[in-house]
Amino acid sequence: MEKILDGAGIMQKDTTIASGSVVLGANQYGKAEVRLVRIERDTPRHAITDLNVTSLLRGDYADCYRTGDNAHVLATDTQKNTIYAFAKERWSATAEEFLLTLGRHFVGTVPWAAGGRWDAEQFGWERITAGGSAHDHSFVRTGQEVRTAAVTIEDGVEHIVAGLKDLVVLKSTGSEFTGFPRDKYTTLPETTDRILATSVTARWRYVPAPAGEPAPAVDYDATFAAVKALLLETFADTHSLSLQQTIFAIGERILNELPQLAEIRFVMPNKHHYLADLSPFGLENPNEVFIAGDRPYGLMNTTVTRAGQAEAPAAWEFLGGFC
Amino acid sequence: MEKILDGAGIMQKDTTIASGSVVLGANQYGKAEVRLVRIERDTPRHAITDLNVTSLLRGDYADCYRTGDNAHVLATDTQKNTIYAFAKERWSATAEEFLLTLGRHFVGTVPWAAGGRWDAEQFGWERITAGGSAHDHSFVRTGQEVRTAAVTIEDGVEHIVAGLKDLVVLKSTGSEFTGFPRDKYTTLPETTDRILATSVTARWRYVPAPAGEPAPAVDYDATFAAVKALLLETFADTHSLSLQQTIFAIGERILNELPQLAEIRFVMPNKHHYLADLSPFGLENPNEVFIAGDRPYGLMNTTVTRAGQAEAPAAWEFLGGFC
Amino acid sequence: MEKILDGAGIMQKDTTIASGSVVLGANQYGKAEVRLVRIERDTPRHAITDLNVTSLLRGDYADCYRTGDNAHVLATDTQKNTIYAFAKERWSATAEEFLLTLGRHFVGTVPWAAGGRWDAEQFGWERITAGGSAHDHSFVRTGQEVRTAAVTIEDGVEHIVAGLKDLVVLKSTGSEFTGFPRDKYTTLPETTDRILATSVTARWRYVPAPAGEPAPAVDYDATFAAVKALLLETFADTHSLSLQQTIFAIGERILNELPQLAEIRFVMPNKHHYLADLSPFGLENPNEVFIAGDRPYGLMNTTVTRAGQAEAPAAWEFLGGFC
Amino acid sequence: MEKILDGAGIMQKDTTIASGSVVLGANQYGKAEVRLVRIERDTPRHAITDLNVTSLLRGDYADCYRTGDNAHVLATDTQKNTIYAFAKERWSATAEEFLLTLGRHFVGTVPWAAGGRWDAEQFGWERITAGGSAHDHSFVRTGQEVRTAAVTIEDGVEHIVAGLKDLVVLKSTGSEFTGFPRDKYTTLPETTDRILATSVTARWRYVPAPAGEPAPAVDYDATFAAVKALLLETFADTHSLSLQQTIFAIGERILNELPQLAEIRFVMPNKHHYLADLSPFGLENPNEVFIAGDRPYGLMNTTVTRAGQAEAPAAWEFLGGFC
Repeated sequence: MEKILDGAGIMQKDTTIASGSVVLGANQYGKAEVRLVRIERDTPRHAITDLNVTSLLRGDYADCYRTGDNAHVLATDTQKNTIYAFAKERWSATAEEFLLTLGRHFVGTVPWAAGGRWDAEQFGWERITAGGSAHDHSFVRTGQEVRTAAVTIEDGVEHIVAGLKDLVVLKSTGSEFTGFPRDKYTTLPETTDRILATSVTARWRYVPAPAGEPAPAVDYDATFAAVKALLLETFADTHSLSLQQTIFAIGERILNELPQLAEIRFVMPNKHHYLADLSPFGLENPNEVFIAGDRPYGLMNTTVTRAGQAEAPAAWEFLGGFC
Repeated sequence: MEKILDGAGIMQKDTTIASGSVVLGANQYGKAEVRLVRIERDTPRHAITDLNVTSLLRGDYADCYRTGDNAHVLATDTQKNTIYAFAKERWSATAEEFLLTLGRHFVGTVPWAAGGRWDAEQFGWERITAGGSAHDHSFVRTGQEVRTAAVTIEDGVEHIVAGLKDLVVLKSTGSEFTGFPRDKYTTLPETTDRILATSVTARWRYVPAPAGEPAPAVDYDATFAAVKALLLETFADTHSLSLQQTIFAIGERILNELPQLAEIRFVMPNKHHYLADLSPFGLENPNEVFIAGDRPYGLMNTTVTRAGQAEAPAAWEFLGGFC
Repeated sequence: MEKILDGAGIMQKDTTIASGSVVLGANQYGKAEVRLVRIERDTPRHAITDLNVTSLLRGDYADCYRTGDNAHVLATDTQKNTIYAFAKERWSATAEEFLLTLGRHFVGTVPWAAGGRWDAEQFGWERITAGGSAHDHSFVRTGQEVRTAAVTIEDGVEHIVAGLKDLVVLKSTGSEFTGFPRDKYTTLPETTDRILATSVTARWRYVPAPAGEPAPAVDYDATFAAVKALLLETFADTHSLSLQQTIFAIGERILNELPQLAEIRFVMPNKHHYLADLSPFGLENPNEVFIAGDRPYGLMNTTVTRAGQAEAPAAWEFLGGFC
Repeated sequence: MEKILDGAGIMQKDTTIASGSVVLGANQYGKAEVRLVRIERDTPRHAITDLNVTSLLRGDYADCYRTGDNAHVLATDTQKNTIYAFAKERWSATAEEFLLTLGRHFVGTVPWAAGGRWDAEQFGWERITAGGSAHDHSFVRTGQEVRTAAVTIEDGVEHIVAGLKDLVVLKSTGSEFTGFPRDKYTTLPETTDRILATSVTARWRYVPAPAGEPAPAVDYDATFAAVKALLLETFADTHSLSLQQTIFAIGERILNELPQLAEIRFVMPNKHHYLADLSPFGLENPNEVFIAGDRPYGLMNTTVTRAGQAEAPAAWEFLGGFC
């Protein structure tokens, strides 16, 4: 088994043990969607962290594929147990730090794990207001966005990508779409006033430390709050000439204000709202009555990067829609 | 065609035109999930209402079933058009009132529509904060609950049922479950400290007017806000001996404080959080690390009614899980 | 606690112990979505049954709601344990019979359970073909429909309702929609050739035994197969003048051929397929290119009953969309 | 705008027009989930093709992001129109060929589209049996798998990836898991007889033509059928020592038998079935009664490649879970 480190290949590949003409390529394995709820209750004022954690190992696993020899296969059940045990004995305040702890443990203690991916969804909770004040131990799920985090360890580098999804925004004016080319199949009229709506999925990569050094200390919670606030504010304040322009403006502003970030990627649908045609009923419709469409929808994948930052494809692999 | 008004039968049934031994029973038809976004933009400060509307007619429809004669069948496409047209010409500030307007229109103008059901989901939006203030025309979807409304017209009575769903709450202590009977298949230990979590689906029925009179004037928005606040506060403040006890306490408090309501019904899962067994790893787990379960879950259907109010089965028909 | 048996009320209600003016109405509780996979392996040729079982008890439960006294509350965990234990010791070949066994056990042994509902989804599996023959112990999930079963015990009567859902059918011609009334909001043109498509959800109620007698012996598997075959064949063979007409024809044929059934109910969307307008591109579209719509959709609730059979509202309660 | 062709970068990137320190990275845009149903009706025996098509363009699009200049932005609405128009005028029998036609059209006619991705889900239909024979124009959706296809054009190369998803398989014996390493957090016992179940998602890449030449002629339907049959048969016939071993055996057999394929990738959960512990009830459970788990689940990403085939990362980009 030789470790392959070419440009595109992120995971270890098996090139020496061929069976006939067939080769094991990139692979990873682990336990997905471990639902962990952690209560901090050192005082009567409890805190809650609600995570959906996935652990995936990469490395020297060719034998289990080829011969069914499991001597290298740390059971996915063990990975799950480790997540719950670490939630007690090595707990961290943020998902990013908890995932880093998990990743360093596996890479540091499993001889066959050269790297891997540890990611989580985080569901928000806020205190219930009772008798006019925030309750000590009763919570209500916030919406609508889900926070995400993904830690990748590869070739000794720790990549940290945080994000959010399902943040739905809409502006009822201040959005145009004109000046686009027209070919034989173009029927869309130009418009200087339309609804612009999207469901934001974004992931931002933190500036990494050099290989062999731990990820730099960052306030992940504060960064999340800042990204969300800048995203919403820029969406609101930008007079939109296209969804693309709005997305880039959001990414540019976030990178300009948050030097701890190396890049940010967006997967954003254009959630079309069609003006209802009320003319058959003798009615005007001055942008008041809209049909919210389901499918099809526009779709934009966009990357905004800080100049001079090296690319880090390993950080993005397997993040559905982002690589 | 004879109109049948027995105790259990809500919709008109066809008993006279039998084909062999087969009879058309209760039926309704219409258009479901009409996605309507209504912008109020008389001033630069826009308002948004986001609804998913369903219209279902009941009445004299046996011929279309038996012979394919569509002379009585107001097309579902027409019902959809009416929803969009009324959003312009007969718009109301609340879903409940808009649905009433639709229902009265159909029952009043379609000779074969003796009654029907008009319901909606309503998705919440709040203004985005930009530059420190709430933006005029940019919005972000709130979560987590979806508001619901259902108007039924039957035998000249207008039934109004409002509700919410997907409101997820959790308390990290203040919940017990003890004193339950034990049989041969019981293994569950008693506990005086557990997580209690549920996803609230509730529907409340407003006190109706007598047959032939219009539904009484009610502030539906204020009632919704009051129900939600009371629900959350009672969940937080109740030391729970069982989910059943908590549900009843919520319903009792809501009915006691809101005389405009005749009854309230709940469909609530007991979203189990299992204490992780960390003893194999030599770790204590004093209610800190939990496994959030998916399936199975406890399930409670509960009705709380104001004494002296007549039952109104017609108001609840076809409201999945509530009848 | 008095047992109430009025026309509309199916479940036991609490009318004597009022707290202030608030009354506990209809209620049930239990464990939902118990995922049971049962392998029969007495020979090398295994068989698999894959169920999602829910158990809900009704009866004398007012105290737990009002005072938190759980002395009557057989834990939902116990109900789950019973399902798994009975899968070993009291297993039946069909979901309907297994649910009956469960229901009779709870009503017969739990002093406070006057009745209840036991239902299941059943997922289909077929043998994988390997080496030209059906494999002994390897299976692939069939699609698309899910089979359903629901047993209700109420007032000593055993109601059995079976069904299926998610069976999607389409005919590319042989469907018209003409002769419908036109009002101010009607824009739909008549058509004598359209796609007719729907996703069938159906539930059929077996002819019950008199109160106090066990449900009659029926071949539930054969009946399921017959209903599905008749449904598909009638859908295919009926020249459709409306979806309503097609549904009734299906129900009528099923009842005419299967005397063991008392009634059948359908919840069927009209899954619209819109003819794509290719005229801007200079193209004809003679019913070849269609846009499959998501929302809105037509919706039909239809009941077809055998003349002379008593109604059984208890059998249908809480079956979302069917009552 | 300079075209960047480094190892990891697949899409065109903007490196020359920086705004401050922020750079537009990889991006694509288009219309997603265009629901197309195509009926072939040249004879009374109709045929149906049911697709969910997405079109995404890549190329010279920096200006729309930076300045809102849409001069290069072929509207996503136009892409949708083209899909429907081509379904009439340039229809192909298979999704792969139809997507190739679309891709070549856009790359060949849109000056700014250097490449892109065209993909589809394909939903299966089979003829309804009526009167003992297969009906001419009535169909029922097959299950359970969905067929997929993805065509990528990048740097003049046409990559074709086909696949399937949601094919759920289970074997009730013939599966072991032993010999895995044990650390402090390992509690899983070894087993020589367990249920093995998974939901197969697979994508296979066809051997490409050299750059500048069209993709080689292939029978995509026959290849799909062969892959599915080999996959099922190998799953059934392999005595499994681990899911990894089973996956590799499947991939190896498919590549060995189908020379038109360059590689195949799998995303496969280990859908755990836990043996129910019936010992508290005095019952044995010799692998008969299982609890089907939802979360967590094992997860395997596996690539099997033909030796000597060049990697083609462009073919896999943005295929969620596969890159």
